Amino acid sequence: MPDRVYETALGASTKDTITLLGQDLAEDVMGTVGFGELAFWLATQRRPGKGETRVFEAVLAALADHGFTPTAIVTRLTYLSAPDSVQGALAAGLLGGGSRFLGVTEDCGRFLHDVLTAGGTQPSDEDGWDALALRTVEDLRRQGKFVPGLGHHVHKDGDPRTRRLFAIAAEEHLRGPHLELFAAIGRVHPRVLGKTLPLNGAGVCGAALADLGLPLPLLRGFALLARAAGLIGQLAEELRHPVADAIFRSVDLNNRSVAPDPHR
Amino acid sequence: MPDRVYETALGASTKDTITLLGQDLAEDVMGTVGFGELAFWLATQRRPGKGETRVFEAVLAALADHGFTPTAIVTRLTYLSAPDSVQGALAAGLLGGGSRFLGVTEDCGRFLHDVLTAGGTQPSDEDGWDALALRTVEDLRRQGKFVPGLGHHVHKDGDPRTRRLFAIAAEEHLRGPHLELFAAIGRVHPRVLGKTLPLNGAGVCGAALADLGLPLPLLRGFALLARAAGLIGQLAEELRHPVADAIFRSVDLNNRSVAPDPHR
Amino acid sequence: MPDRVYETALGASTKDTITLLGQDLAEDVMGTVGFGELAFWLATQRRPGKGETRVFEAVLAALADHGFTPTAIVTRLTYLSAPDSVQGALAAGLLGGGSRFLGVTEDCGRFLHDVLTAGGTQPSDEDGWDALALRTVEDLRRQGKFVPGLGHHVHKDGDPRTRRLFAIAAEEHLRGPHLELFAAIGRVHPRVLGKTLPLNGAGVCGAALADLGLPLPLLRGFALLARAAGLIGQLAEELRHPVADAIFRSVDLNNRSVAPDPHR
Amino acid sequence: MPDRVYETALGASTKDTITLLGQDLAEDVMGTVGFGELAFWLATQRRPGKGETRVFEAVLAALADHGFTPTAIVTRLTYLSAPDSVQGALAAGLLGGGSRFLGVTEDCGRFLHDVLTAGGTQPSDEDGWDALALRTVEDLRRQGKFVPGLGHHVHKDGDPRTRRLFAIAAEEHLRGPHLELFAAIGRVHPRVLGKTLPLNGAGVCGAALADLGLPLPLLRGFALLARAAGLIGQLAEELRHPVADAIFRSVDLNNRSVAPDPHR
Repeated sequence: MPDRVYETALGASTKDTITLLGQDLAEDVMGTVGFGELAFWLATQRRPGKGETRVFEAVLAALADHGFTPTAIVTRLTYLSAPDSVQGALAAGLLGGGSRFLGVTEDCGRFLHDVLTAGGTQPSDEDGWDALALRTVEDLRRQGKFVPGLGHHVHKDGDPRTRRLFAIAAEEHLRGPHLELFAAIGRVHPRVLGKTLPLNGAGVCGAALADLGLPLPLLRGFALLARAAGLIGQLAEELRHPVADAIFRSVDLNNRSVAPDPHR
Repeated sequence: MPDRVYETALGASTKDTITLLGQDLAEDVMGTVGFGELAFWLATQRRPGKGETRVFEAVLAALADHGFTPTAIVTRLTYLSAPDSVQGALAAGLLGGGSRFLGVTEDCGRFLHDVLTAGGTQPSDEDGWDALALRTVEDLRRQGKFVPGLGHHVHKDGDPRTRRLFAIAAEEHLRGPHLELFAAIGRVHPRVLGKTLPLNGAGVCGAALADLGLPLPLLRGFALLARAAGLIGQLAEELRHPVADAIFRSVDLNNRSVAPDPHR
Repeated sequence: MPDRVYETALGASTKDTITLLGQDLAEDVMGTVGFGELAFWLATQRRPGKGETRVFEAVLAALADHGFTPTAIVTRLTYLSAPDSVQGALAAGLLGGGSRFLGVTEDCGRFLHDVLTAGGTQPSDEDGWDALALRTVEDLRRQGKFVPGLGHHVHKDGDPRTRRLFAIAAEEHLRGPHLELFAAIGRVHPRVLGKTLPLNGAGVCGAALADLGLPLPLLRGFALLARAAGLIGQLAEELRHPVADAIFRSVDLNNRSVAPDPHR
Repeated sequence: MPDRVYETALGASTKDTITLLGQDLAEDVMGTVGFGELAFWLATQRRPGKGETRVFEAVLAALADHGFTPTAIVTRLTYLSAPDSVQGALAAGLLGGGSRFLGVTEDCGRFLHDVLTAGGTQPSDEDGWDALALRTVEDLRRQGKFVPGLGHHVHKDGDPRTRRLFAIAAEEHLRGPHLELFAAIGRVHPRVLGKTLPLNGAGVCGAALADLGLPLPLLRGFALLARAAGLIGQLAEELRHPVADAIFRSVDLNNRSVAPDPHR
């Protein structure tokens, strides 16, 4: 078998140099490139502009921490149980980043992309976007499906992150087709569903990430990156003001043993 | 049992507001706080200054990706095997962030901290630092231990990240006692060891993170956060230019079946 | 809020007793119940008979280890990188147990179950099973879909595990509807596809697990349990005869740095 | 570079055969070798005898499930959050298998081994074991260390698993030096500590595993294997009688937002 070669444009080093994305890591990246900017660059192999970085970091901020979510509880309990392995506690928390709690971002971005791809030429004005959104919501309704990114169990009158992310994207002239379609869905869905639901923060984040050209199969990955920062925050708080043991005991002390039942 | 209450200063929300670290998330964090700055703030509950953010983000850049490390290979192979779960691929890669490959950062930060804590009053000039460093290296030598952060298997004549991080910290007036002691170790160790070894990048990152006041038991966590961005970059590259299947086959096709042997 | 109570029929203990599944753990489980039997019992809350345990353990044996799979390589590389955390190495390997490498078992079991559920009354003889199988394969063909469990990239003339598992199930009088349908698919598919493919081992395992009444959403879980034993075997071999470092180097030394390209 | 070859005695296959540990998998393992027996064989590359298998499976039974432990809660919460990934839920739970909750087994096995290795010739009668145990406990006391495997926060008058595992090992003539030393520690420690503590179940499991000749660095691995079966039981119960959402809400609804405080 001939020698294989594995190509990469990411990190590489020789005895005297270290490069990352074709840059001199020490001279041209360290001290110059912010962490959000670098994460974007790594994922796209394209250096983002200032506006793109601002929108991207706003998304990461929106997704970093939502308090005592299952992922946060999991990270704290795992650290309680295996304090020797910070990497295990962090990984365990991230494993909760699946379809239910962190998946909306990805689902919404993909959904908008699919509609845009199927829809032929893109609308050129608000009426056009509204018409496309109307057809889209009607289609979903007919299939008995929910609209990704629509509705929130707490912020029923509007999710403050949504409004803000639209504003930031507009300021940076980065309101692209995914955000436009998402906004139009926000405007027209009451006509189809008979009630007004908020566009949620996770959904608008997916739309914004898709507009930034980030890879769709990895949209969940950016939610996970944001959450990694949040989970380190949770661990830091747990170190100084622990609650995991109390959570564990609140479950264990309230357990009630029942008879096994294969038919239950 | 009285109702338990779980306190947190991280994310919280009511019907109309979302706060993070006591800030209004939408208005005062999104669009305003960079991702590195936010990660620092979450971990310390203290907003870093501009210089602190710059040093912190330089550390994250230094640690984000080192090419085809075991962690990168693991993430790519796990994605090959379970493409339905980006979170699993990311978590698997992070689980390699233990004592050998990402642990130097934490070990070095803790080690410097222990020396400083044990050492009584801190030196006030370079001669003082050199004296403390000399005692430290001699002690380790006597115990047959390595000096954390000293030596590199590739960058034998100096790690470019080290020089650069010292420079950035100096520019930002953030060269604290951990970096001072580390620099002194770099100056004096040849007198004890009889050869000159480079201060490595992972080690200087640990010194810088400790000087920034980040929690010592979580220093490894920051290496993991940096690596999370790198692993997403690895996945993005794998999506467009896959190598995992070739890596897998290069192992599987070169397997040789041998007889089991309990004494081998 | 009233006190919550969390019911469980699994492990429980008081000062003097420990119960598991309603049994006295020390007296009635330890030394009496084998590990495969116990795993079955835990998953179904029903103690399996001897024949059920034999079929179940045959499935676990079939899935335990397939040599240098991605999961095995991942576990070895993670242990190389973080030898302080056996749990991390094991967890990393299991995370590869997704749709591609371990998912066939679950997919096949669910698929057969769906056909049986949709199919009304079950056939009472081989002709009846063949007719149902024929309709099923024709339907899939029409939809351009593959038949789960059919085909193998290596064992093109028949997977020895399949023949053997059918035989064991027959010996134990546990050839239920899922295995019957799977066997019928093996007989009739050449008439539709125009070529003869083997029923693979992962697929027949899924059929057998479904016939045993194990919970369908967790069929993948049993493949993971089997693999956990295999991965511990991989770690044990790695300890005594390491290959992970050579695998890592074979990749790292063959890396070739290319220019970043957002359009690649 | 010459072609590398990766040797393994585990799974291997050709077009017509599949071997595992040098055996014909289909003919000589499936239907013949129990799952506990196979796990032992994989880890040692030596087929255990009947008595060894019985002791080993008794250990696995003792460690499989302890009710609502942090690991069980973590697996349930992760499944709640990411129901698309059974492997993620299982891996997350196993990541809690570290130093605090599952580590006692490994720590105790290693500790006994170290004492035996350091102790020169092994005692030949109970008096000799008592003398060695006495020196050992006195040494630990002097160093201010706990005796691994001694004490239990619930089973203060004796852990029923301990008594039972000693009995099973005796029945199978497999009471080796690790169990002898552990038993002697149980007899003599009151003379040193001034109070009688129980030998706990996790500790005796470590002693038994060490006596069976299983690899010491992987003792934790067997606790994880046992727990994998338990966690699948937890998931199966969660599917039919969910509690994870109630656990999550009991934490989230009792959260109290406090001001961030870097000095807390």
